[in-house]
Amino acid sequence: MDSPTATLLISCPDQQGLVAKFASFIYANGGNIIHADQHTNFEAGLFLSRMEWQLEGFNLSRDMIAPAFAAIAKPLQAVWQVHFSDTIPRVAIWVTKQDHCLLDLLWRWQAKELLADIPLIISNHTTLQAIAQQFGLDFCHLPINKDNKIQQEARQLEVLRQYRIDLVVLAKYMQILTPDFINHFPHIINIHHSFLPAFAGANPYHRAYERGVKIIGATAHYVTADLDEGPIIEQDVARVSHRDTVPDLIRKGKDLERVVLARAVRLHLQHRVLVYGNRTVVFA
Amino acid sequence: MDSPTATLLISCPDQQGLVAKFASFIYANGGNIIHADQHTNFEAGLFLSRMEWQLEGFNLSRDMIAPAFAAIAKPLQAVWQVHFSDTIPRVAIWVTKQDHCLLDLLWRWQAKELLADIPLIISNHTTLQAIAQQFGLDFCHLPINKDNKIQQEARQLEVLRQYRIDLVVLAKYMQILTPDFINHFPHIINIHHSFLPAFAGANPYHRAYERGVKIIGATAHYVTADLDEGPIIEQDVARVSHRDTVPDLIRKGKDLERVVLARAVRLHLQHRVLVYGNRTVVFA
Amino acid sequence: MDSPTATLLISCPDQQGLVAKFASFIYANGGNIIHADQHTNFEAGLFLSRMEWQLEGFNLSRDMIAPAFAAIAKPLQAVWQVHFSDTIPRVAIWVTKQDHCLLDLLWRWQAKELLADIPLIISNHTTLQAIAQQFGLDFCHLPINKDNKIQQEARQLEVLRQYRIDLVVLAKYMQILTPDFINHFPHIINIHHSFLPAFAGANPYHRAYERGVKIIGATAHYVTADLDEGPIIEQDVARVSHRDTVPDLIRKGKDLERVVLARAVRLHLQHRVLVYGNRTVVFA
Amino acid sequence: MDSPTATLLISCPDQQGLVAKFASFIYANGGNIIHADQHTNFEAGLFLSRMEWQLEGFNLSRDMIAPAFAAIAKPLQAVWQVHFSDTIPRVAIWVTKQDHCLLDLLWRWQAKELLADIPLIISNHTTLQAIAQQFGLDFCHLPINKDNKIQQEARQLEVLRQYRIDLVVLAKYMQILTPDFINHFPHIINIHHSFLPAFAGANPYHRAYERGVKIIGATAHYVTADLDEGPIIEQDVARVSHRDTVPDLIRKGKDLERVVLARAVRLHLQHRVLVYGNRTVVFA
Repeated sequence: MDSPTATLLISCPDQQGLVAKFASFIYANGGNIIHADQHTNFEAGLFLSRMEWQLEGFNLSRDMIAPAFAAIAKPLQAVWQVHFSDTIPRVAIWVTKQDHCLLDLLWRWQAKELLADIPLIISNHTTLQAIAQQFGLDFCHLPINKDNKIQQEARQLEVLRQYRIDLVVLAKYMQILTPDFINHFPHIINIHHSFLPAFAGANPYHRAYERGVKIIGATAHYVTADLDEGPIIEQDVARVSHRDTVPDLIRKGKDLERVVLARAVRLHLQHRVLVYGNRTVVFA
Repeated sequence: MDSPTATLLISCPDQQGLVAKFASFIYANGGNIIHADQHTNFEAGLFLSRMEWQLEGFNLSRDMIAPAFAAIAKPLQAVWQVHFSDTIPRVAIWVTKQDHCLLDLLWRWQAKELLADIPLIISNHTTLQAIAQQFGLDFCHLPINKDNKIQQEARQLEVLRQYRIDLVVLAKYMQILTPDFINHFPHIINIHHSFLPAFAGANPYHRAYERGVKIIGATAHYVTADLDEGPIIEQDVARVSHRDTVPDLIRKGKDLERVVLARAVRLHLQHRVLVYGNRTVVFA
Repeated sequence: MDSPTATLLISCPDQQGLVAKFASFIYANGGNIIHADQHTNFEAGLFLSRMEWQLEGFNLSRDMIAPAFAAIAKPLQAVWQVHFSDTIPRVAIWVTKQDHCLLDLLWRWQAKELLADIPLIISNHTTLQAIAQQFGLDFCHLPINKDNKIQQEARQLEVLRQYRIDLVVLAKYMQILTPDFINHFPHIINIHHSFLPAFAGANPYHRAYERGVKIIGATAHYVTADLDEGPIIEQDVARVSHRDTVPDLIRKGKDLERVVLARAVRLHLQHRVLVYGNRTVVFA
Repeated sequence: MDSPTATLLISCPDQQGLVAKFASFIYANGGNIIHADQHTNFEAGLFLSRMEWQLEGFNLSRDMIAPAFAAIAKPLQAVWQVHFSDTIPRVAIWVTKQDHCLLDLLWRWQAKELLADIPLIISNHTTLQAIAQQFGLDFCHLPINKDNKIQQEARQLEVLRQYRIDLVVLAKYMQILTPDFINHFPHIINIHHSFLPAFAGANPYHRAYERGVKIIGATAHYVTADLDEGPIIEQDVARVSHRDTVPDLIRKGKDLERVVLARAVRLHLQHRVLVYGNRTVVFA
C-alpha cells in the first residue's frame, strides 16, 4: 500500500448512477480503487463519497485529474476536492500554556501516525517554547490582549501564509478567534474540553463537577464563527464518580482531549471528513 | 449472605472519628459489617457513609436500632436513614405508550435483579394495560390534559398512598409533574433520553442528530422541581455515526434508556444512593 | 425508504474496476443505490461488497436479477447472494432454560427492530414454553441426552425444513451441535458468554472471577464445527471490579449477552455480514 | 489536602469488629481519616482495607505507627503495610525499543500525575537513550542474549539496589524475566498488549487480527513467575473493525497500552492496590 494514491471527496445532490459514474471515471482511466465509501443523506437529498485509488498505472497525469473530473462533476452540481497521498499537508499547532495535546500530537507525528509537515507552533505565551526547540520546530510568539487582537490576527494570517499552512490545530489555545479570521482561514480544528453540547463555554470541568455528571467527554470540531458550534469530528467520554474532584476531572479530561484531538487530526489529514451543513461524514 | 441485613445511610458535617464512631456502634452491639463505604466531600465539609451489617446476632432489636443510633447521630448533626433488607420497597411504574423500559424493569423484577414489590402501573394512556395483566399488576389509567392535571395529580397521590408506594419510577412517562406533586412525593426516578445536560428538554434525539454528535446518552435522575436538573444517579452512552438516522438514534437510545434506568432503580433499591445538594454519592 | 430494496453481497478476487462494474450493473438497469459499501482485504487479495438499491423503477424483474448478475459475476469468480428486503427471513430461536436472550429478541421483534418471521422456539427443556404461548409461537420440545443426540438432531433438521427456517439463533442453548448437523444447516448464530477467545469453553464467568479480570464480555458468532471458534459478528464488554461476585458477573454478563446477540441477529437479517475465512466483514 | 498522610493497607481473616478496631486505632491517636475503603471476600473469608489519614495532629510519631499498629494486627493475623504520602517511591522504567509507554509515563511524571522519583531507565537496547538524556535520567544499557541472561539479571538487581528502586515498570520491555529475578525483586508491573487471558504470549495483535475480534485490549499486571498470569491491576479495550489492518491494531493498541499502564502505575503509587491470591482489590 505504499505507492501514492489519489482521494476524491465529493458532495452532490443525490440522483441515480452516482457510484457508477464516479467509479467508472477511475476505472476507465486505469485506476485501482482501494477504498470507496458512500453515504446518502435522504432528508438533505445529498450524496457524499470518498474514493481512494492507486496512482500507479493511472492514465491521467496528476494535473489532468482535476479538469477531467470537473467535466463529470459540473453537470451533477458536485462540490469536490482531490488530494494526493504524497502531498503532505502542512500543519501549525496553536497552544497557550498546556502541553498535553501538543506533546501528544508531536509524538504521533514522530511515530508517523500523522502524515503531515509540522513546521510551526504559534502561541500567545512562551511557556511551551522549549518543546518547539526539542522537536526542531519554529515557535511564533504572538501575545494577545484586548487591544491588539485584530493586529495579531493579521500577523497570524501572514505567518500561516508564509509557512504555507493548510491546517491549524488549536491544541488548547485559550483564545477565541474572530469570525473575520475564520473567514480568511477556515481550516481549523479545535479540541473542546467537554462532551458538546453539554458545558459549552468556559470551565466545563467545574460545571461538570457541580452538575454531578457520571461521565465526562471531549469534542474535536471544526471552528466556525459560532463558538463551540462547529461541525463535530470526534468525541469520546470517560466514566467519573463522586470520588473525582475537579482536579481529577481535569486530569481524566486531558487524556480524553489528547486522543480525541489526535483522532480528529488524523481523520482530517487522511481526507476522511466531509462537512455538510453543520455536520460531518467521517469515512473511518 | 442470605440472612437479613440493616443498612445505615448517613450524611453529616465532617469531623474526626466518624468512621470509628459509626463502626463501633455496630460492633459494640454485636453486628458484623459486610459493607462499609465512606466519602468525604472536603469543599462541602461533608462526610457521607453507607454501612451494611448482618442482623443475625445483632443485640439490638429492629425497633431499638433507630433510637439507639439517634443518640449518636444527634450531637454530630447527622442526617440518616436505616433500612432492613427484608423490608421490600414498594414501587409504582409510570408509563405513557412506550414499553421498552417497563418491560425491562418487569423482566429484571421477575429475574430477582430488583428486590421490590411492584403492585401497580400508572399511565395516562391505556396502551400498555395488557402488560399489567400479563404480569399480574394493577393498572391505573389517569388521563392527563391541560384542564385536569391538578385533580389527576391529587388522584395519583391518593393511589400512591393507597398502595403504600415508596418509589415512583417514570419509565418513559411523558408528562411533567408539578412542583407541588414532587413536594408531596419526593421519591421519583426519571429516565431522560439524553446525556444531560446536553439536550435537556424535548426531542433530544432529533436535536442530537441535527447537532451531529458522535455519541448519544441517557440519564437517570431523581426528579426535582427543576425539570431535567435533578441529582443524576446514572448515565451511559453509545457511539453513533453519520449513518444513524433519527430512528436509529431512537432505537439505540432505547437500549441505553432501559439499562440506565434499571441500574439506577437497582442502586436506589439497594440503598446505595445518597443525595447531597444536587449531586449523588453512589456507593456501587 | 419504505419501498422494497435488493441487496447484493459479493466476495471476489480483487481486481481493477469492480466497484464500477457492480455499480454500473445496477445503474444500467435503472436502479437507485441507497447503500454501497466495499472492503478490500489486500493480504487475501479479496474484494467484498454490499450494495443495496431500490427495486422501484428497476428494469429487471426479481427473477431476472440473479441470472443477469451471474453473467457479470462468473468471469470475476465472484461468490454472491441477492436478497430482497420484503422477503422476510424465517428464524427459529433455540433455548434451554434461561429467558433473557429469548425475551430480548422477541421484544425487539415485536418492536420491529428485527425484520424476521419467528414461528418457532426449539428447546431441550420445557421451562420456557409459556413464553412461546405468550408470543403466539410454536414450541418444539426435543430433550437431548447422550444416547439420543443423533436422532434428535435429525428431528431438529426435519423441523427446520418443515418451518422453512433460514436462520437458527442459539439464545443460550446449552447443548453442543454436532459437526454433521452444522454441515446440514450452516446458518446458525450463537451467543458465547465471554469475550472470546478469552474463556472459551464452560463456566466463563467463574473463570473470569478467578482470573480477576477487570472487564467481561460477550461474543456473538456463527457456529462452525470448531466449538467457540466460528467467525465473530459482534462483541461487547462491561467493566467489573473486585466488588463483583460471580452472580454479579453473571447478571452483568446477561445484559451484554442480550444486546450483543440482538445486534448480531439484526446485522445478519439486514444482510450486513459477509464471512470470509474465519472472519467477518460487517457493513454496519 | 496537601498535608502529609499515612496509608494502611491491611488483609486479614474476616471477623466482627475489624472496621471499628482499625478506625478506632486512628481516631484514638488523633488522626483524621480522609479515605476508608473496605472489601470482604466471603469465599476467601478475607477482609481487605485501605485507610488514609492526615498525619498533622496525629499523636504517634511516624516511627511509632508500625509498632503500635502491629500490636493490634498480630492477634488478628493481619498482613499489612504502612506508607507515608511524602515518602516518594523510586521507580525504574525498563524498555526495549518502543517509546510510547515510556514517553507517556515520563510526561505524566512531569505533569505530577505520578508521585514518584524516576532516576533510571534500564534497557537491553540503546534506542531510547536520547529520551533518558532529555528528561535528565540515568540510562543503564544491559543487553541480553541467551548466554548472558543470568549474569545480566544479577547486574540488574545490583543496579536496582544501588538506585534504591521500589518499583520496576516494564514499559514494553520485550524480555522475559526469570522466576529467580522475580523472587528477588517482586515489585514489577508489566503492560501486556492484549486483553488477557485472550492472546497471552507473543504477537497478540496478529492473532487478534486472524481471529477477527471486534474489540482489542491491554492489560497491566504484576509480574509473577507464571508468564502473563500475574494479578491484573487494570484493563481497557477499544473497538476495531474489518477495516483495521494489523498495523492499525498495533496503533490503536499503543493508545490502550499507555493509558492502561499509566493508570496501573498511578494506582500502585497511591497504594490503592492490594493483591490476594492471584487477584487484586483496587481501591480506586
